[in-house]
Amino acid sequence: MKLLEEKILAEGKILAGDILKVDGFLNHRIDVPFVMQLGREIARRYEKCGVNKILTIEASGIAVATAAAYYLNVPLVFAKKHKSGNISANVYSAGAHSFTHGNDYNAVVSKEYLSENDCILIVDDFLALGSAIECMMNIVHQAGAKVAGCASIIEKGYQGGGDKLRAKGVRVESLAVIDKMENGKIEFRPDEGEAS
Amino acid sequence: MKLLEEKILAEGKILAGDILKVDGFLNHRIDVPFVMQLGREIARRYEKCGVNKILTIEASGIAVATAAAYYLNVPLVFAKKHKSGNISANVYSAGAHSFTHGNDYNAVVSKEYLSENDCILIVDDFLALGSAIECMMNIVHQAGAKVAGCASIIEKGYQGGGDKLRAKGVRVESLAVIDKMENGKIEFRPDEGEAS
Repeated sequence: MKLLEEKILAEGKILAGDILKVDGFLNHRIDVPFVMQLGREIARRYEKCGVNKILTIEASGIAVATAAAYYLNVPLVFAKKHKSGNISANVYSAGAHSFTHGNDYNAVVSKEYLSENDCILIVDDFLALGSAIECMMNIVHQAGAKVAGCASIIEKGYQGGGDKLRAKGVRVESLAVIDKMENGKIEFRPDEGEAS
Repeated sequence: MKLLEEKILAEGKILAGDILKVDGFLNHRIDVPFVMQLGREIARRYEKCGVNKILTIEASGIAVATAAAYYLNVPLVFAKKHKSGNISANVYSAGAHSFTHGNDYNAVVSKEYLSENDCILIVDDFLALGSAIECMMNIVHQAGAKVAGCASIIEKGYQGGGDKLRAKGVRVESLAVIDKMENGKIEFRPDEGEAS
């Protein structure tokens, strides 16, 4: 998505440890009018897929997932992160590793809010190694529901998580895919998903 | 807000420990089309107050704060919760206590995203004892910014946090105020803020 690539180049900062900081519009301060446009683009890409629910994970995925849910006119469920291994029987849970925070956590979703009749779009802000998305897919599968596909705002293509999912036949739409991030320069993968 | 009161009566569940569970539309599964209406109502109540930014706290305040920011056409900043006392010099931070989770935490906001020129609307999903909102007001004051007011979706009026703030002259708009919750019955305070 051209608009997003321009925003990343204009406002993103590359920090040590291979971190792309987009705190100024996506992760901490949220440029809501802009994020609504991102949500609308996600909705456009999945509008004919029978999606009846969006699944994301707290906290930084919630704003863009809210925007996408608004344009698809569906509810949103957000998985909660728990550090402890003490998980109730009333939830689906799966483990994941955070690349940004360098820690492990369990994501949990109440069994009340996912069912085998659901067709789920998984949304997150970042896709790097794919751990959070695989964790959410695991939860959707536990519920016996269908995954329509995944959408991320920024995919670090060179970390391989998105392409690993695509190789398994999962539809993954990322609004910007970074194929290279070196010496302060960012190279984007050509975007085949955007409407011309 | 009549629509919200009806939703709480129809879908809310009163649990042991004085917990009102609205996980089905506000806290875990989010009824996004409905939450957008809540955000629009918050925006309507603050539309002439010069608000240039919304502040909320992760995670369950983010969806409704996104909706309010959309209708006010302003950015949103969400405070992050940290358990550790190890806080960087580049953030504003303040302590708070979670009534729901029974724990203490520090809320932090990067100094980059609040300034003395800001006029802030503080938004959260619940207002009980007022700890989270007081914590956010503390952060806004550290930045030298102005608080236009606070908005919560559900205020537990009988816990006094909202009225304590009002007594200090802070404008607090709650879309539903529960004055009594006993034996499975909920009594709402008459809503003076709603447009007739």
